[in-house]
Amino acid sequence: MSKKIIIIGGVAGGASTAARLRRLDEKAEIIMFERDEFISFANCGLPYYIGERIKERDRLFVQTPEAMKARFHIDVRIHSEVIHIDTDKKVVRVNSKLRGIYEESYDYLVLSPGAKAIKPNIPGIESSKILTLRNIPDTDRIKSYVDQKDVKNAVVIGGGFIGVEMVENLRERGLNVTLVEAAPHILAPFDSDMAVIPEKELMDNGVRLILGDGVKAFSETGDQIEITLNSDTKLRADIVILAIGVLPDTTFLKESGIEVGARGHIIVNERMQTNKEGVYAVGDAVEVTDYVTKLKTAIPLAGPANKQGRIAADNIAGRNSSYKGTQGTSILKVFGLTAASTGANERTLLKAGIPYKTITIHPVSHASYYPGAVPITLKLIFHEDGRILGAQGVGYDGVDKRIDVIATVIRLGGTVEDLTELELSYAPPFSSAKDPVNMAGYVAQNVLEGRSHITSWDEVTAMKKEDYVLVDVRSELEYQNGHMEGAINIPVDELRERLSELEQGKTIVEYCQVGLRGYIADRILSQNGYRVYNVTGGYKTATTLQL
Amino acid sequence: MSKKIIIIGGVAGGASTAARLRRLDEKAEIIMFERDEFISFANCGLPYYIGERIKERDRLFVQTPEAMKARFHIDVRIHSEVIHIDTDKKVVRVNSKLRGIYEESYDYLVLSPGAKAIKPNIPGIESSKILTLRNIPDTDRIKSYVDQKDVKNAVVIGGGFIGVEMVENLRERGLNVTLVEAAPHILAPFDSDMAVIPEKELMDNGVRLILGDGVKAFSETGDQIEITLNSDTKLRADIVILAIGVLPDTTFLKESGIEVGARGHIIVNERMQTNKEGVYAVGDAVEVTDYVTKLKTAIPLAGPANKQGRIAADNIAGRNSSYKGTQGTSILKVFGLTAASTGANERTLLKAGIPYKTITIHPVSHASYYPGAVPITLKLIFHEDGRILGAQGVGYDGVDKRIDVIATVIRLGGTVEDLTELELSYAPPFSSAKDPVNMAGYVAQNVLEGRSHITSWDEVTAMKKEDYVLVDVRSELEYQNGHMEGAINIPVDELRERLSELEQGKTIVEYCQVGLRGYIADRILSQNGYRVYNVTGGYKTATTLQL
Ligand SMILES: Cc1cc2nc3c(=O)[nH]c(=O)nc-3n(C[C@H](O)[C@H](O)[C@H](O)COP(=O)(O)OP(=O)(O)OC[C@H]3O[C@@H](n4cnc5c(N)ncnc54)[C@H](O)[C@@H]3O)c2cc1C
Ligand SMILES: Cc1cc2nc3c(=O)[nH]c(=O)nc-3n(C[C@H](O)[C@H](O)[C@H](O)COP(=O)(O)OP(=O)(O)OC[C@H]3O[C@@H](n4cnc5c(N)ncnc54)[C@H](O)[C@@H]3O)c2cc1C
Ligand SMILES: CC(C)(COP(=O)(O)OP(=O)(O)OC[C@H]1O[C@@H](n2cnc3c(N)ncnc32)[C@H](O)[C@@H]1OP(=O)(O)O)[C@@H](O)C(=O)NCCC(=O)NCCS
Ligand SMILES: CC(C)(COP(=O)(O)OP(=O)(O)OC[C@H]1O[C@@H](n2cnc3c(N)ncnc32)[C@H](O)[C@@H]1OP(=O)(O)O)[C@@H](O)C(=O)NCCC(=O)NCCS
Repeated sequence: MSKKIIIIGGVAGGASTAARLRRLDEKAEIIMFERDEFISFANCGLPYYIGERIKERDRLFVQTPEAMKARFHIDVRIHSEVIHIDTDKKVVRVNSKLRGIYEESYDYLVLSPGAKAIKPNIPGIESSKILTLRNIPDTDRIKSYVDQKDVKNAVVIGGGFIGVEMVENLRERGLNVTLVEAAPHILAPFDSDMAVIPEKELMDNGVRLILGDGVKAFSETGDQIEITLNSDTKLRADIVILAIGVLPDTTFLKESGIEVGARGHIIVNERMQTNKEGVYAVGDAVEVTDYVTKLKTAIPLAGPANKQGRIAADNIAGRNSSYKGTQGTSILKVFGLTAASTGANERTLLKAGIPYKTITIHPVSHASYYPGAVPITLKLIFHEDGRILGAQGVGYDGVDKRIDVIATVIRLGGTVEDLTELELSYAPPFSSAKDPVNMAGYVAQNVLEGRSHITSWDEVTAMKKEDYVLVDVRSELEYQNGHMEGAINIPVDELRERLSELEQGKTIVEYCQVGLRGYIADRILSQNGYRVYNVTGGYKTATTLQL
Repeated sequence: MSKKIIIIGGVAGGASTAARLRRLDEKAEIIMFERDEFISFANCGLPYYIGERIKERDRLFVQTPEAMKARFHIDVRIHSEVIHIDTDKKVVRVNSKLRGIYEESYDYLVLSPGAKAIKPNIPGIESSKILTLRNIPDTDRIKSYVDQKDVKNAVVIGGGFIGVEMVENLRERGLNVTLVEAAPHILAPFDSDMAVIPEKELMDNGVRLILGDGVKAFSETGDQIEITLNSDTKLRADIVILAIGVLPDTTFLKESGIEVGARGHIIVNERMQTNKEGVYAVGDAVEVTDYVTKLKTAIPLAGPANKQGRIAADNIAGRNSSYKGTQGTSILKVFGLTAASTGANERTLLKAGIPYKTITIHPVSHASYYPGAVPITLKLIFHEDGRILGAQGVGYDGVDKRIDVIATVIRLGGTVEDLTELELSYAPPFSSAKDPVNMAGYVAQNVLEGRSHITSWDEVTAMKKEDYVLVDVRSELEYQNGHMEGAINIPVDELRERLSELEQGKTIVEYCQVGLRGYIADRILSQNGYRVYNVTGGYKTATTLQL
């Protein structure tokens, strides 16, 4: 007898499960319930359609119910919300616009209900001027709002990926945009030393940025809405986009006995099975294992949702398949800039109690002598045993490539040593003979093996001024154009001759522009008996951090 | 006592060794001999300086003797050719423009003499109109030739990387360019099904391409040079660039007792040591292990030369370090196109007797609904046990990233299964939720597990017409716009209803545009009892191959 499979949710995870299932099992009966009108749409494209970078609304639909029927013989039922599940009888109850409430039985059930935007309980939150973005109706609502001629001012609350994408796209539409973020910095996957770069890009593109300040209340004032922040700063806008995160859309599971975590995420094993027989779950609604820290977490991204859908389908169809965890590889366009990250950041590692080291380098995107080369800021986080734990990259070109390569190394359990050995493609328009990823490996290797003695501006600031001599090892010209307070200047190329200017026994803290010359100075000084620290990231990082 | 190290050759391998050595050992005496006037120049940039994409000649110099002295305290001696080595006495004999012939002793010797352009023994080869490209004087010679107003026609002999780069750059300078390649296709690292794409790009950019025809003779005819090919075709040109490959520049080692291979490559172990005590060798002049086939080979590329230099320095300074082989990752810009490859190609594997499977897909560079998405042709070569053996990619965007990711997987010994699990960065401007690399993994996995039954146009052509039914599963419109001879049309979306049109027991060969719909048709047909083959790469590959 053929299997009967019900899928709840018809977008990333759900539709992926359905399509793969059909390929594996031509005879199965597959029903896909979707609460809304639309299935298989490009969630990730929504901000760009609002910003009119994607011009045609039709382009957002990867599949339609009719096409899913024709190609995959899937019984797609839209406007059909599953409101109850009986996992003993293996029956779901459906509230259908067309057919009213009815039940449908299953052999296998796949949950991919996704997530919903968080709407905190703040005075005035129900204003119709406050919009969230998750699906096509949300998109139509925001876009028709923005299309009105008299909408000039927008406030976006929340500096996560969707918030920043909305900021950019509203700006592209010519609006004045203010971004409000309660944390000290935007983009939580990035450490603060990296997040400052996209923050600057936003400001350079005319965005007003308010950091470390949350929303206390909203109130409508005639045609506008007033936003009161915790600091009592008041903002006015024609439209507010609320993008402070998502929660799993799993309240309908309440009485099902399907196990969920503290915040409502469905608990699954490696095969995407829940605690209930025959019930699988995938996508934004599930709890996953952090691939690096091995702790439980939730990472709402499309790649994992698609992959998990395929894995659930495999297991239902009898192909053994497992999901080994999410490492949180993510990427964002911020106007001209690219910001990408993979694995754990410092904050996560501190919380997990995992010791780590970091280095930051500023290599160029491709051979510097070939036109168009621009610097990348690349931060590598690694364990004392050499394992790569995470990486973050920001720059105008070539960032996605380097983060994807490091994501691959993390996935395959690679080390700093592996980074130095990677043989990546090189011709002048594409990279350097030592790719930035190799370079990060070299620098990290030198740290691990004690050849390079690095410190950070944070640590330097914490030291007593009288305990060290601060040396700027850049050229005289660079020094004159701006240097750290209290630094003396001895260019690295003169260091060997001018050693006598540095008192033996004193600790030397030295820096260059990005760290490379500082490393060479470190090698010269330490081999000449000095106790020396080279500031990682150099003067460039100091400038970025506005020290 | 401090070590005395002599380095022969002052560019990629030599200068890298010198710089790393100094960082490891502040006290060592380091002498670097360079036959020419220039050290540390950007070999890889030379074609682009001739093409005037790199505008300033100075940009080609990464280091100068003075700078190497100042920063690294290296005794750089230019115009100094090492002409003899006594490995017993540990002494080299130098022919110096400044000092005449003299000897210098060493504790350690590092050879990085590089390679020289092959000049075959053909009538007329000594013409001053035939130029090769390896170093700065070569570059100056070619450029000053091209800068003359009356130079209009160039013939480039050899369709390797340097040949094709010269073709592009001479074309950029407005010359009429003919490329002559003796093999059936240009760019040996690529299989013919891939090489045809850059060939088309060359022709689209006005290059005349002559394949499968070698040079028999040259003769000067007044201001021009006449090139006679094996086919007796005659070409005329103002300038000929000869780029048919390189040989190690190692004749000066003849009496040294340092072991070299059949074609003159220096034999080294994993630590870059030759058979003679204290003598190391790196770069284009050495024989390496092919990382995939484990056979001995020679791969003259800058990345390996730089890495090997660092490894030789490590070992001399007492840090254990080994070079595990070269996988030949390489990349080339061909006008707007990028062509990149890593690992073994079909030719190499056939020669090595290693069985393999291949798949070819045509995914888009990033989400198709986001502007600027363009297709990539991505070929994956893998072992029956799942190990990735090689990959080739061609396209207008995003090729370097995908090849670098696969190069990383190969380096870390990864499999097809690993490709499906990689978590790569996704947002619409950068990739798709299933990255092309994931997709290649899926398609290969389906082949390995017998879910997908693929064949190639080669194999189809070899079958008897009466033994199969050829089905085009694309839409009616696509079919009408052009299809394979003899194909009937049943769109995949109608296949389930029209099964009765296909005789049971007959073998079905079916194709779509790129392979995806063909795979779905394969799943439908094979689960309905048909013996079916889906042609990999689909109609697109047929068009590319001009079938
Ligand atoms: C604006 C935006 C931009 C994004 N950009 C990116 C990006 O660039 N990169 C990236 O990796 N990820 C991005 N994401 C995240 C990505 O879209 C999600 O991770 C992915 O869609 C999750 O898939 P899912 O199947 O779990 O949920 P969804 O795709 O949201 O699908 C869930 C569906 O289930 C339906 N549903 C819920 N409950 C029921 C019920 N009881 N009965 C019937 N139907 C129900 C919902 O209506 C919904 O259509 C973005 C998301 C948004 C909103
Ligand atoms: C035009 C061109 C483009 C290239 N493009 C790329 C590319 O895009 N990507 C890539 O990966 N690779 C590229 N390469 C290859 C790359 O440049 C080489 O792999 C690399 O330079 C090899 O380093 P090496 O140290 O072995 O040799 P070289 O860099 O050639 O250095 C050898 C030096 O040794 C000197 N020498 C030789 N014999 C003696 C002697 N007896 N005494 C003293 N000195 C001696 C020579 O004069 C020479 O300067 C390109 C090469 C060329 C010529
Ligand atoms: C499109 C959607 C319905 C899934 O469909 P899908 O058929 O699984 O996915 P694709 O169209 O990418 O095709 C992938 C399949 O084709 C195969 N394939 C791809 N190219 C191929 C080729 N050239 N030859 C043979 N097979 C090929 C793959 O192997 C894979 O099949 P498998 O899973 O059985 O191995 C679902 O992903 C979806 O709804 N997406 C939109 C929503 C979304 O993802 N949102 C978040 C991102 S914006
Ligand atoms: C430039 C050249 C002299 C080598 O110099 P090099 O000092 O080894 O190389 P780089 O300038 O790239 O610097 C790399 C070193 O700086 C370190 N470094 C780089 N960025 C750093 C940073 N931000 N902080 C600390 N250290 C850094 C690396 O760890 C590495 O040191 P290590 O080898 O001791 O680990 C040599 O490669 C050369 O001559 N190149 C031109 C010729 C050539 O390569 N041609 C072919 C390609 S066109």
